[in-house]
Amino acid sequence: MWLKTNKISYFYDVKNSLLKHINLPIDLRQLKPEDLPQLAQELRNFIINIVATKEGHLGASLGVIELTIALHYVFNTPIDELIWDVGHQAYGHKILTGRKDVFDTNRRLNGISGFPKRSESAYDAFGVGHSSTSISAALGMAIASQLKGENKHHIAVIGDASIASGMAFEGLNHAGVTNANLLVILNDNAIGIDPSVGALKQYLTNVKKGTEKQDNIFEALNFDYSGPIDGHDLPLLLSELERLKTVKGPKFLHIITTKGKGLKQAELDQVKYHAPGKFDAKTGELVATPNSEKLPPKFQDVFGETIVELALKNEKIIGITPAMPTGSSLKYMMETIPDRAFDVGIAEQHAVTLAAGMATQGLIPFCNIYSTFLQRAYDQVIHDVAIQNLPVIFCLDRAGLVGEDGATHHGVFDLAYLNCIPNLVIFAPSNAIALRNIMYTAQLGIDFPIAIRYPRGRDHLLNWKMPFETLEIGKGICLKKGSSVAILSIGTVLKNVVDAIEMLDDKTSVGYYDMQFVKPIDETLLHEIFKSYQAIITIEDGTIVGGFASSVLAFANAHHYKQSIVTMGIDDQFIEHATVHQLQQLQQLDALSIKKEIENLFLFIKNS
Amino acid sequence: MWLKTNKISYFYDVKNSLLKHINLPIDLRQLKPEDLPQLAQELRNFIINIVATKEGHLGASLGVIELTIALHYVFNTPIDELIWDVGHQAYGHKILTGRKDVFDTNRRLNGISGFPKRSESAYDAFGVGHSSTSISAALGMAIASQLKGENKHHIAVIGDASIASGMAFEGLNHAGVTNANLLVILNDNAIGIDPSVGALKQYLTNVKKGTEKQDNIFEALNFDYSGPIDGHDLPLLLSELERLKTVKGPKFLHIITTKGKGLKQAELDQVKYHAPGKFDAKTGELVATPNSEKLPPKFQDVFGETIVELALKNEKIIGITPAMPTGSSLKYMMETIPDRAFDVGIAEQHAVTLAAGMATQGLIPFCNIYSTFLQRAYDQVIHDVAIQNLPVIFCLDRAGLVGEDGATHHGVFDLAYLNCIPNLVIFAPSNAIALRNIMYTAQLGIDFPIAIRYPRGRDHLLNWKMPFETLEIGKGICLKKGSSVAILSIGTVLKNVVDAIEMLDDKTSVGYYDMQFVKPIDETLLHEIFKSYQAIITIEDGTIVGGFASSVLAFANAHHYKQSIVTMGIDDQFIEHATVHQLQQLQQLDALSIKKEIENLFLFIKNS
Repeated sequence: MWLKTNKISYFYDVKNSLLKHINLPIDLRQLKPEDLPQLAQELRNFIINIVATKEGHLGASLGVIELTIALHYVFNTPIDELIWDVGHQAYGHKILTGRKDVFDTNRRLNGISGFPKRSESAYDAFGVGHSSTSISAALGMAIASQLKGENKHHIAVIGDASIASGMAFEGLNHAGVTNANLLVILNDNAIGIDPSVGALKQYLTNVKKGTEKQDNIFEALNFDYSGPIDGHDLPLLLSELERLKTVKGPKFLHIITTKGKGLKQAELDQVKYHAPGKFDAKTGELVATPNSEKLPPKFQDVFGETIVELALKNEKIIGITPAMPTGSSLKYMMETIPDRAFDVGIAEQHAVTLAAGMATQGLIPFCNIYSTFLQRAYDQVIHDVAIQNLPVIFCLDRAGLVGEDGATHHGVFDLAYLNCIPNLVIFAPSNAIALRNIMYTAQLGIDFPIAIRYPRGRDHLLNWKMPFETLEIGKGICLKKGSSVAILSIGTVLKNVVDAIEMLDDKTSVGYYDMQFVKPIDETLLHEIFKSYQAIITIEDGTIVGGFASSVLAFANAHHYKQSIVTMGIDDQFIEHATVHQLQQLQQLDALSIKKEIENLFLFIKNS
Repeated sequence: MWLKTNKISYFYDVKNSLLKHINLPIDLRQLKPEDLPQLAQELRNFIINIVATKEGHLGASLGVIELTIALHYVFNTPIDELIWDVGHQAYGHKILTGRKDVFDTNRRLNGISGFPKRSESAYDAFGVGHSSTSISAALGMAIASQLKGENKHHIAVIGDASIASGMAFEGLNHAGVTNANLLVILNDNAIGIDPSVGALKQYLTNVKKGTEKQDNIFEALNFDYSGPIDGHDLPLLLSELERLKTVKGPKFLHIITTKGKGLKQAELDQVKYHAPGKFDAKTGELVATPNSEKLPPKFQDVFGETIVELALKNEKIIGITPAMPTGSSLKYMMETIPDRAFDVGIAEQHAVTLAAGMATQGLIPFCNIYSTFLQRAYDQVIHDVAIQNLPVIFCLDRAGLVGEDGATHHGVFDLAYLNCIPNLVIFAPSNAIALRNIMYTAQLGIDFPIAIRYPRGRDHLLNWKMPFETLEIGKGICLKKGSSVAILSIGTVLKNVVDAIEMLDDKTSVGYYDMQFVKPIDETLLHEIFKSYQAIITIEDGTIVGGFASSVLAFANAHHYKQSIVTMGIDDQFIEHATVHQLQQLQQLDALSIKKEIENLFLFIKNS
């Protein structure tokens, strides 16, 4: 089932390797407790060696090596069920549960997923990716076990950034009034992807310092609390987990760990080493990207630099991110204008309604949320922003296919789930200049909310810091007129359209249009197009169901246009992990697939 | 702007009425503190007298009469900004802020909204309806004031059921690390619509009993905590609010109130008197619905009775509701099979992922959530249920137009926001029997998630407890064949279609189809239809954008059918409050509008 590219046994760098002989937890449990620190060392090296060349998430897994070993040693996985919140930290878990030999396929096409995934292993009790789901899921399992009369343990491992999210509180609040056999382990390293924030984080810091009484928040919620203990102390972890096995009902273990533990640079720069790209496994030094200064900009940096540029001139501008200051590049504004840039933690719901509250006061909030995470605040977009028609500017980062993070992280539903919301304007820039210009336009003063969605990664334009221009809301662009086939695209997939047309023998027959706005869709331009072409292609980096294509179909139907319309986009299925280009090929959104579709239409027109 | 039906001055039942002279808080502030208890009595009577005949929410507003008066007396509203969480309790607020003379138009077409609403009054600082938004919105306003150098107060009043929702925790967690001038008032009456649940509720009970230390959860989150105090003691409220005006930064006042205060029956049966319908203003006795036993059943009771019937035979069945045991009728199962029926509180996100966790263990969870509230758990439906293809059975109550609750509560987006989710099956029963049969079918064992959406209120069938039948997934029904026009409906709007056809002179030309499944749509049946008719009407009680209509359009386009398709449904706008029938008329979903549309198509066909 999995891709097996090469042997990876050379990664066992200890002579009498213990890890070499461990394929499953049952093997692990043959070891003596005193052997486990050596195993921890080997597991760390194994992860470091592979991630150094194959890339992926690093720091989080290094921080829970001891916990991972202790859990599989003490508990009877997979009968006892273990849920890793978010799942960035589950590499050690994957390696100890049957996936050591395919670990170098991590996050690759047909390889294993970067996150725990039920279809991949019986040891992955629950699929994860988005944060703060583990307590609810584990509680559901624990209640089920109770009803079925099973004597199983259910364990949720959750970080201090994730436990501050509302959903985790809801899980704790319910668990506390059950007698379910649930163990929540708080892996407290004071950092998510970026450093943790919020009052709970301060509180946990005080608990660690001993300045808070032991009668704490978790005890207030009826949990049997223990800790904080050193999460790198294997004997202590083993004895505490053994003790907790005998405690009935909801219980809470608070452990303190260091993200990146065991790789010096990763400990020192925890943000960078969350997912560091390629690095030297021995020294930890990052492998420099050659000539990165001469590359086109990341959309993230276009956002980050542009909001600073605008906010320095317009003091009403606010920046908000739920826990992604680095990923979104809002960090530039947080450094430059700290009193108007807010990291609210993993709290998308709060982020949106906070922005709505600010908008009522005449401020201009840019609320930057990854497309996939805005799903967490869907009600707030409708109920707190759109119904009141408040001018919140949503910047949906990592829209469309995101690549290696896979099914849980693709931002492909946004066009569909936003399209049905009244009052909301939806814009997808086709390049960095368009992103800058829509940001500029929105902050000039709008009387409606707007969602601007753009992808992860680099644009293709080098010279993007052009003078600002005001965009007309709801206006598409004719980039080239043609005679028989028109291609209507939305967002950065335009680049593939242009490349596809370049490959054609007959370029003149094809017209192409950057529609820019999914909503309001440019009906004037659509009338022009439908009156001029025999066939239409719509293309978008989002679900065909409910998105841009469906708006074009509705327009054509309403105005009785009868042309053939080919709708290209993401099929009605969850898309797995691979590079963006591979996924575009699979979903026929790459230039070659577009070219073939155009040629098919040429034939169709010729024959009809 | 507002409907003014009749004079309501006869509701001042005190000779020297104080209320009579109060139109705005500025008038209220002319009174002496010692006059306020009389005003409280008058305000209570005013609300009781009007709600007794005009219906609406009762208990929540009666519980905060003193708080309402005290807040407007002490604070300088509307400069100081006051947000009522949910807003059920804001009738007193509305009456004291310029809407006394139109209060009898509450919740009626063109009348005032049952909830605070920014477009209605400057005193309604933030539109509400869904719970737990107030802290985030007020914090946004407070931070804005701070940035603008304004010395304003920002107050969020939130109930103990609402504060247990994750979003409220997110707001508190952020507020605690700001020095924003925010006052959170916890209106603790131990009940939402149904009694509050969860560990936090137990904790608050202990705080009230004095068995918890004062160094409590809210202090742990950096709030300046005061209370608990008696929320019906006006002098105490005034002095405490005056004191809190001088406290800087985030502060928290815990008050204890009685829901329904002042009307004996409302205090005794707080659930029933949340929104009691018509009652005798003097005695509090409910006005009995004549012959309610002979009426067709409420869909809620069909769900509630059917799940009990099924769960008694199938021990895998679980019932879950986030805080709506009465509204959803899951209370029947909670009474009959308490160990398998869960009220998890206002925690939609948790409810969905809890259900997902249970489903992994082979249980069959029926997760009953109002359509509009499932928006709160959108990510969980995608990420925790659909990606893993877990067989969770979502019962979406109050789907479609809900009537008097208005824009915040209509369940009209569900078909669109669910349609784009892979793996999910979407079913809308056209009557009570279909609801029973799909529930029966789903619990027989499915290997996918399913969403079953049905409306608030009564079906039209009297004999609904028929023997169960298994439904074929993805199968629509031809109810009557015709020759020229086919009507394809989804859900209970079928009744209006049938009524429309009854009104036609030419009944034979029209065929009509209950499509049942929005997803997977019955393509076999669609091919038959598109091959047999000259024109098609789709009709749904949901947004036209992205819903059932868009699936039919996509089908027609994919298969090159060129017929005229008329799409009837909810327009791309927020729908206000009125009776369901009035709203159907406005949205042209009533029988007469459908009839006219069919006749238009007859003409169109004749002329083409």
